[in-house]
Amino acid sequence: MKKDFLTLLEYTPDEIRAMLRLAAELKAGRGRTERRVLEGKTGVMIFEKPSLRTRISFEAAIHELGGHVVNLAAESVGMGTRESVEDVARNLERIVHLVVARTFAHDTITRLAASCKAPVINALTDLYHPCQAMAFGLTMQEARPGKKVNAVFVGDGNNVCASIMIICAKLGYNFTVASPAGYEPHAETAKICAGICAETGGRLDITNDLFEAVKNADVIYTDVWASMGQEAETQKRKAVFPPYQVNAGLIARAPKGVLVSHCLPARRGEEITCDVLDSPASLAYEEAENRLHAQKAIITHLFSREAI
Amino acid sequence: MKKDFLTLLEYTPDEIRAMLRLAAELKAGRGRTERRVLEGKTGVMIFEKPSLRTRISFEAAIHELGGHVVNLAAESVGMGTRESVEDVARNLERIVHLVVARTFAHDTITRLAASCKAPVINALTDLYHPCQAMAFGLTMQEARPGKKVNAVFVGDGNNVCASIMIICAKLGYNFTVASPAGYEPHAETAKICAGICAETGGRLDITNDLFEAVKNADVIYTDVWASMGQEAETQKRKAVFPPYQVNAGLIARAPKGVLVSHCLPARRGEEITCDVLDSPASLAYEEAENRLHAQKAIITHLFSREAI
Amino acid sequence: MKKDFLTLLEYTPDEIRAMLRLAAELKAGRGRTERRVLEGKTGVMIFEKPSLRTRISFEAAIHELGGHVVNLAAESVGMGTRESVEDVARNLERIVHLVVARTFAHDTITRLAASCKAPVINALTDLYHPCQAMAFGLTMQEARPGKKVNAVFVGDGNNVCASIMIICAKLGYNFTVASPAGYEPHAETAKICAGICAETGGRLDITNDLFEAVKNADVIYTDVWASMGQEAETQKRKAVFPPYQVNAGLIARAPKGVLVSHCLPARRGEEITCDVLDSPASLAYEEAENRLHAQKAIITHLFSREAI
Repeated sequence: MKKDFLTLLEYTPDEIRAMLRLAAELKAGRGRTERRVLEGKTGVMIFEKPSLRTRISFEAAIHELGGHVVNLAAESVGMGTRESVEDVARNLERIVHLVVARTFAHDTITRLAASCKAPVINALTDLYHPCQAMAFGLTMQEARPGKKVNAVFVGDGNNVCASIMIICAKLGYNFTVASPAGYEPHAETAKICAGICAETGGRLDITNDLFEAVKNADVIYTDVWASMGQEAETQKRKAVFPPYQVNAGLIARAPKGVLVSHCLPARRGEEITCDVLDSPASLAYEEAENRLHAQKAIITHLFSREAI
Repeated sequence: MKKDFLTLLEYTPDEIRAMLRLAAELKAGRGRTERRVLEGKTGVMIFEKPSLRTRISFEAAIHELGGHVVNLAAESVGMGTRESVEDVARNLERIVHLVVARTFAHDTITRLAASCKAPVINALTDLYHPCQAMAFGLTMQEARPGKKVNAVFVGDGNNVCASIMIICAKLGYNFTVASPAGYEPHAETAKICAGICAETGGRLDITNDLFEAVKNADVIYTDVWASMGQEAETQKRKAVFPPYQVNAGLIARAPKGVLVSHCLPARRGEEITCDVLDSPASLAYEEAENRLHAQKAIITHLFSREAI
Repeated sequence: MKKDFLTLLEYTPDEIRAMLRLAAELKAGRGRTERRVLEGKTGVMIFEKPSLRTRISFEAAIHELGGHVVNLAAESVGMGTRESVEDVARNLERIVHLVVARTFAHDTITRLAASCKAPVINALTDLYHPCQAMAFGLTMQEARPGKKVNAVFVGDGNNVCASIMIICAKLGYNFTVASPAGYEPHAETAKICAGICAETGGRLDITNDLFEAVKNADVIYTDVWASMGQEAETQKRKAVFPPYQVNAGLIARAPKGVLVSHCLPARRGEEITCDVLDSPASLAYEEAENRLHAQKAIITHLFSREAI
């Protein structure tokens, strides 16, 4: 049993599948057969960046599992300024039972987890967004149950891309990243995922050739061109990314019935067009909902004494 | 059964009376016979303007009905900037069960409600403050049960004035607005209310003659001269409004036993004097408490399957 | 039965001991035998200064006692600006059952409590930090049960120092403050504590001689050189306080087995060195946890009908 949920790399394919099964179960029983693993317990949320989906889905998750949420403004905690990350951790573990953190630097959450006896969940860092990947995994298992999915990520090789790549490798999916040159995913993470694929039967391709990439796609995934914290690069990126827009033209290059998703918020008309995001092929809002169920499963997994 | 609670115009007199009866019942049974219609459910609050009474009364209301509250800073949601109002709505409806919003533009909440399957409650917009009106209605039914009340609103024909005007029309009360010239309530809302009065037997008068207005008043209501968002006009308004102060001189012009109320916060010494606000005639703090009971009734109404 | 918990001066030694016994009991039974004195009730937290420990320990405390927490941003309440302190109080008492406030001026919380029928708890003012003192008291009764403790406070005679001084006087402990000249505790509070000592058998010494002060210490307590709100004095204080650092050299002057504590957050390398704060002698993190248990006991005491 791991203490934390930080990158998804630390979990085996079996553990991930078990959590996804649990998520599906929790989704089916929402409001009726809840597992109250946080009864009487308190979870703290520390967010260094704004959030809509993550805030509401984690708060609802903790509440539906019986717990209480404390929201701490990052300025008020001052991790690394008012008090060291390690000292924050040593205080938190004394009083709360769960820590959900969204930090700029992935290193911050790693140090927080290392110094804190309570479980720490990564709610987005500059390197990973593992909860989003779990929501994507759940969405795929609903849309293409039991199938080896061909997933294509179009755009910036960012934190969301890295985590989708990891879960695809873990689940033995084929995963292709189609990025503009210079915006490929981190080579190190890609290398690790290639190694995982060798065991799980998945395949990983990284290319700049968008049309080739989507030729066999079951699902096309995209994200904003400039993530939170990259606002300064917005103009530069707006010159590079337009050919990688997910639009009707691109969908026409993919097999009939191709699905589309996005981690949201979307910049409509930039990385994705309204007609595509609002089409029946779009799973983006279902995936947003699946954040709730996936996160309830992750928490339940962390708080279960015996294997689930 | 309506999905939302946005202006009070959408509710019939019978529905409003039923909610007020329910509010009285919930007030009497507070802490003992609560209706747990939000058990296991999550309500989200999005506030674009500061709030004391609305925040605490809605949070307590949701809690006492069994639910959990998520407070979202409006900057963090970025409705219309980070993400469109419609996209915010489509995400919220997936995860939370109730949305309470305070927005600058009434149009924002209308769009939010139109795109969101979950109920949306208006916690103040530039045009309406229907929850305050319900609290006023409850306060009047306690103070003057079964009576056709003569209510007089003194001051700025703002959002609070509009909503008090609407509930008076719906309940068949006589309602007079005494404003400085140029600060009368919206002509459109007044016209609609006159139409409602024709059906309910109420009467609506709009005048600049303050002393004439209060001659037969059962209750005198006032609000600050410059509402939130109108700070730039403060000086200009301070030159216009002083003759419309609710003070002992004005009370002396009204019938003996006249009541006074205010939606708070008050600028003591401006629109109302301390001696009046703190007198036994003042129902302002009772009305503040009645926000809680009225809002519990509104939520219970929205979440009840069958008619109440 | 007092309504509020403001300075600790208002409580008798017997009451304080009863609350500390209750805190120990609640600590032992955490998560199993909770006292749900806030079931269905709402507590509001108003903080004019940032906070980590106080926020999480009060939120967890209120939750574990069955209640709901409303967090109000001080800017949003605007005590004394948007609305008078008294008017805020008159609104709060109508809707919430408990008020926890951290204010710059102690006078603010005194006025808040005087105008509010609901209990008000002081979560730090410029003059006192009584909840920290209770956590210190609990920590001492665990570490040195039944003993007359020799406590030494090293550094700035600030609000924490004042409250530790008060609880030591109430419990009949010997208390020595070793401060740089000009940074002694308020003469008025010291005089009151000397008077209490005369009844309880404690002793109070105030000195600038650090080495003499720690000669018989059972526990050495310190706090940052410049508290929240004194940032402007930081440089000036950095010239004065270094000789009063709690480091290995100072520990060597104290009896073997001397304990150390700190209210946190610590400026490691300023008022205390890492080797001391992280040593087995350090009770700082235990005391941080004891905030939770002490505050649960304080709330339970305030909400209990009969004497505990």
